[in-house]
Amino acid sequence: MVSVVLIGTGNVATQLFDAFLAYNTINVVQVVGRSNKSLAHFATKTETTQALETIKKADVYIIAVSDDAIQSLAKQLVHLKGLVVHTSGSVPLTALSELQNYGVFYPLQTFTKGKKIDFRTIPICLETSSNQNHKVLHFIAETISDIVYDISTEQRKSLHLAAVFVNNFTNYMYRIGQEICEENKVSFEILKPLIQETAWKINTINPLEAQTGPAMRNDVQTMQAHLEQLTSKNNQKIYKLLSESIQKKI
Amino acid sequence: MVSVVLIGTGNVATQLFDAFLAYNTINVVQVVGRSNKSLAHFATKTETTQALETIKKADVYIIAVSDDAIQSLAKQLVHLKGLVVHTSGSVPLTALSELQNYGVFYPLQTFTKGKKIDFRTIPICLETSSNQNHKVLHFIAETISDIVYDISTEQRKSLHLAAVFVNNFTNYMYRIGQEICEENKVSFEILKPLIQETAWKINTINPLEAQTGPAMRNDVQTMQAHLEQLTSKNNQKIYKLLSESIQKKI
Repeated sequence: MVSVVLIGTGNVATQLFDAFLAYNTINVVQVVGRSNKSLAHFATKTETTQALETIKKADVYIIAVSDDAIQSLAKQLVHLKGLVVHTSGSVPLTALSELQNYGVFYPLQTFTKGKKIDFRTIPICLETSSNQNHKVLHFIAETISDIVYDISTEQRKSLHLAAVFVNNFTNYMYRIGQEICEENKVSFEILKPLIQETAWKINTINPLEAQTGPAMRNDVQTMQAHLEQLTSKNNQKIYKLLSESIQKKI
Repeated sequence: MVSVVLIGTGNVATQLFDAFLAYNTINVVQVVGRSNKSLAHFATKTETTQALETIKKADVYIIAVSDDAIQSLAKQLVHLKGLVVHTSGSVPLTALSELQNYGVFYPLQTFTKGKKIDFRTIPICLETSSNQNHKVLHFIAETISDIVYDISTEQRKSLHLAAVFVNNFTNYMYRIGQEICEENKVSFEILKPLIQETAWKINTINPLEAQTGPAMRNDVQTMQAHLEQLTSKNNQKIYKLLSESIQKKI
């Protein structure tokens, strides 16, 4: 059995906590948070504290706080003997190098408050400072997920950047789609099957082959008509830049 | 039983043909194509022809050819008594107004050669010139799909434009993600669960609420680091424009 202290109470901490609960080989002995309110979800199931000084002894400490807060938090944990890991995509492993045992435990997924996710399908990217730590971290990751990778800081940074495109920017494309629908009084619902299929498609063919549309066909007439249809100057700019980008690579 | 002639042999024609085959209330009596090769898929299951002059009598004629070819094709069909419909998102209903009975039968989906799609989940957007035609078209649409809408030419044009964002441009985001992975020697596979979840999420929350990422959090440091990481000037431009757009709307 591996004992774990969770530091943080946000989406990642909550989803990890709920995932760990299902396995009796991982025991979350404590959750550290800033307020009673933020600790409420955990307080009925394990010990909680707001004071880092009262942190318990554990095999592994998982820091799930905002990127900016990681380094200063780490300074307060230098006395710990256990393995301390952060869960960030963009913070380097070396941010924790003052600690005795350290690593990274990065679940690559978008977590939404209140929306439960099946952790088994979430890739977990690991990086550690030693072989022994590597073993413990793999044990935890493989307990909750079927997809575990060893990833260097540099690779993780690239994944995080790529994730901005495939997640944040993709969601923004959905948002523009919704705006256009609202403006023209058509239901955004009609587009949802298309959105699902667009995502599903890349499981069988790569995005290069999957590219379709007026830019890909060099259908100048349709692109011109679309630009005229768009009422927002900013959306016109996006339409132009992305169409030109697609065309450059045909 | 409704008799149908399909004009065209591309992805839309093929998927429609295969969908119709499963129902004995729709009888595809003929497929019109340009070559034996393009007609091969259909020739074992129904009559085919390359000559419009030999087109058969039918209740409904479905034109599934490229947008540019619709109007000139329609001119050659003015003698037909049956209902002639096109399947385009951007061509107006009036493009067929010289015909005796006309309409639009627009399945809003991305069709890939060789990848079979469950037509029941594909929204079909209909527009017709008369009540009688409306009835026949609804019968065909509802036979193969559970999602049938009456949509005006203007609304259809907006949907088509919105689809460029949620489908073509989204796929381009996937492509940039893949590029970044390849450049940095990490597997694009790691991002696939995130891509699926990003799409799946908008079935429960709207894209406005679902928006996350450095731009949304106004995390200037991460955005700067990302811009430095990007090796392509064009991808930098896209990153900047989309981040600024997200920030404008916070």
